[in-house]
Amino acid sequence: MSRITSLLTRFDPETGKVEGVQGVSRRLADLRGAFADPVAFEEALHKDNPIVYTVSSVTPGDGKGDLHYGVGVLFPGTVGQEYYLTKGHLHSWREAAEIYVGLHGEGRMLLEDEATKESTVVELLPNSTVYVPGHTMHRTINVGPVPLLYIGIYPADAGHDYREIAKRNFRTVIVEKEGKPVVMDREEYMRSLPQMKTGR
Amino acid sequence: MSRITSLLTRFDPETGKVEGVQGVSRRLADLRGAFADPVAFEEALHKDNPIVYTVSSVTPGDGKGDLHYGVGVLFPGTVGQEYYLTKGHLHSWREAAEIYVGLHGEGRMLLEDEATKESTVVELLPNSTVYVPGHTMHRTINVGPVPLLYIGIYPADAGHDYREIAKRNFRTVIVEKEGKPVVMDREEYMRSLPQMKTGR
Repeated sequence: MSRITSLLTRFDPETGKVEGVQGVSRRLADLRGAFADPVAFEEALHKDNPIVYTVSSVTPGDGKGDLHYGVGVLFPGTVGQEYYLTKGHLHSWREAAEIYVGLHGEGRMLLEDEATKESTVVELLPNSTVYVPGHTMHRTINVGPVPLLYIGIYPADAGHDYREIAKRNFRTVIVEKEGKPVVMDREEYMRSLPQMKTGR
Repeated sequence: MSRITSLLTRFDPETGKVEGVQGVSRRLADLRGAFADPVAFEEALHKDNPIVYTVSSVTPGDGKGDLHYGVGVLFPGTVGQEYYLTKGHLHSWREAAEIYVGLHGEGRMLLEDEATKESTVVELLPNSTVYVPGHTMHRTINVGPVPLLYIGIYPADAGHDYREIAKRNFRTVIVEKEGKPVVMDREEYMRSLPQMKTGR
């Protein structure tokens, strides 16, 4: 077992910080193009550039049967009406699935079949898991008032492809209406924005 | 995504029971040969045949990049001084790793390299994960006073091999001494048993 440096990984349940791992922080400015409302995005960014989420990746081995995982924390907030979200990704090895384990907070997984573009929204909550099949774009969204903490586990050779989503984005958004998450078609939400109505 | 019946799996944090899944229960009688003290085992079984652990397996897909997982609950108790444990297994596909996520209770993962027979004991606790590399026998042990709840995630094609461990068992045991878990060599523990000393 000498090829594995440490078999035990501890993380802080409040911050998601993993002992001995330098996590990646995504700030609002890193998420340009991810939110549906560009005016609200620029207004929010003009005020502040907060950390939206962090991911600490653990990569114990790179053999064929090995697994990697990330501990993620997605902070609460909105841009316009749209809840804070991750960039989302496909796996470079398209067949690779991923299992998300919800640990704290209230989230949603937004899934979109790469080929059929069919959308599915699944709750990401404590005491539950979400299965992301292969060939599926997936994004995490925090629809609650506290940080969303989760673990995502995937085959070591899955790889991350962010480009496809940066190009086309998801067809679906989750927006806050009267304090509750509502699933909407992205185009429909964009048509409803004030700047679209006023020509601003 | 039609090949996956349900992407969301909920489980009861107290019982580990997974919605819509018929779990497997292992009772004390199913664990003959797993504990080091055969006299204590038969005495315990004479009194009662309790459920020692349950595993509810979720198998959403069987493709090359798919993952399977099990939600496990291991109850507190001892046989002689040895804490309640799972049978333990190797993966049929030896290269396959497994990631354990601790959710509740206080456990240990006992790992033994199949080839070198080197033992490693790793804590299995909430807010932490344990990496089980390929080619490694692994067993879960509850060293606390409450049920131990965890999830184990592995490649869909890992497979379970129980035979090798049923033949040779692990070299190491974890026993309760003055209320605390102590790691011992199995042979040494067996030599210390009263029936060995008295010839009973």
